[in-house]
Amino acid sequence: MDSAVFEDPADSREEILAATYRALSEHGYADLTIQRIGEEFDKSVGLLYYHYDTKDELVLATLEFLLAEFEARFTDLEVDEPREHLETLLDRLFGAEEDRTHLETLIELRARVTHDEAYRDHFARSDRVFEEYLADVLAAGVESGDFRECDPEAVATTLVVFVNGLLLRQVTDEGTDALDRARAELEAYLAARVYADPTT
Amino acid sequence: MDSAVFEDPADSREEILAATYRALSEHGYADLTIQRIGEEFDKSVGLLYYHYDTKDELVLATLEFLLAEFEARFTDLEVDEPREHLETLLDRLFGAEEDRTHLETLIELRARVTHDEAYRDHFARSDRVFEEYLADVLAAGVESGDFRECDPEAVATTLVVFVNGLLLRQVTDEGTDALDRARAELEAYLAARVYADPTT
Repeated sequence: MDSAVFEDPADSREEILAATYRALSEHGYADLTIQRIGEEFDKSVGLLYYHYDTKDELVLATLEFLLAEFEARFTDLEVDEPREHLETLLDRLFGAEEDRTHLETLIELRARVTHDEAYRDHFARSDRVFEEYLADVLAAGVESGDFRECDPEAVATTLVVFVNGLLLRQVTDEGTDALDRARAELEAYLAARVYADPTT
Repeated sequence: MDSAVFEDPADSREEILAATYRALSEHGYADLTIQRIGEEFDKSVGLLYYHYDTKDELVLATLEFLLAEFEARFTDLEVDEPREHLETLLDRLFGAEEDRTHLETLIELRARVTHDEAYRDHFARSDRVFEEYLADVLAAGVESGDFRECDPEAVATTLVVFVNGLLLRQVTDEGTDALDRARAELEAYLAARVYADPTT
């Protein structure tokens, strides 16, 4: 979830989604209410109720908006430096635990898949979008010769599975070196299966 | 979570935990109540309230009991066939999606780490116990020459991170071939980094 897209809302729908995002960041999912979203919204709370019946409708619209922004930015991406691209992404993912509240909210929302088909559809789609983006980065690296002849889709799916496990671990562990070990082994995997020249 | 340990409860404490396990399997966490646990319990519901104040105390006692059983079975394990041992375990993990209700409950409980320190402590410990068990299997394979000179702890942590991501994916996806791709790539990782003779 990247909040930058909410900095300059284009219309009142985007203002509503931006308010939902801020309220989620502040209170988490369990303690979120439409009233609390209203507190983040400059206009009348009535306008929220006019467009949305439940907090889940607001949350899902916000998640869909963020995913659509991600798709718009990362589809048909020109990847100039595939390996640097991948390494920067891993830095961001392993650094995610610094924003624990944000991560906890993400895990709370993800766990809604067990109760609500709309969340299940959303996260199945978001895993797929993230996989397609990674597969594009991997295919660009195979094309440029930076990466071996791997199966970009299989590697992408494996990375997304690993990343979801990592997020779950980041909200569970505190102050252990488990994540350092996992990162070292992930790098060794990439060296063995993906990077054309593992020594650089 | 292995229910077999609840088939023959030794005393009324184990009967209570077995009833909690059955009620959890039936209703999931969100819809679980002490009343519903009572319906699975042959004796008086008063006995539940006498020992436990909240459903979370009952659930956590049940999770701790299952983890202690796992530790008792798998600590100082004699691993005769390390590679077969690991492959059997992967079969079980990738087959876990057949019992979706069970998986959903596990994810619901895991997501409690975002709200409740007692769940966070439990799952941090259960990740560690599972990692120690895997590291033992890996070290046995290095010792026997079936596995390369890998770092058993780093591989074990990586596998546990991957497995948690896999469980999350199994409750999200339906009828895609993503899990087949992830399995093929995981096998390729093990061939590249762990198995001494990847061709067999």
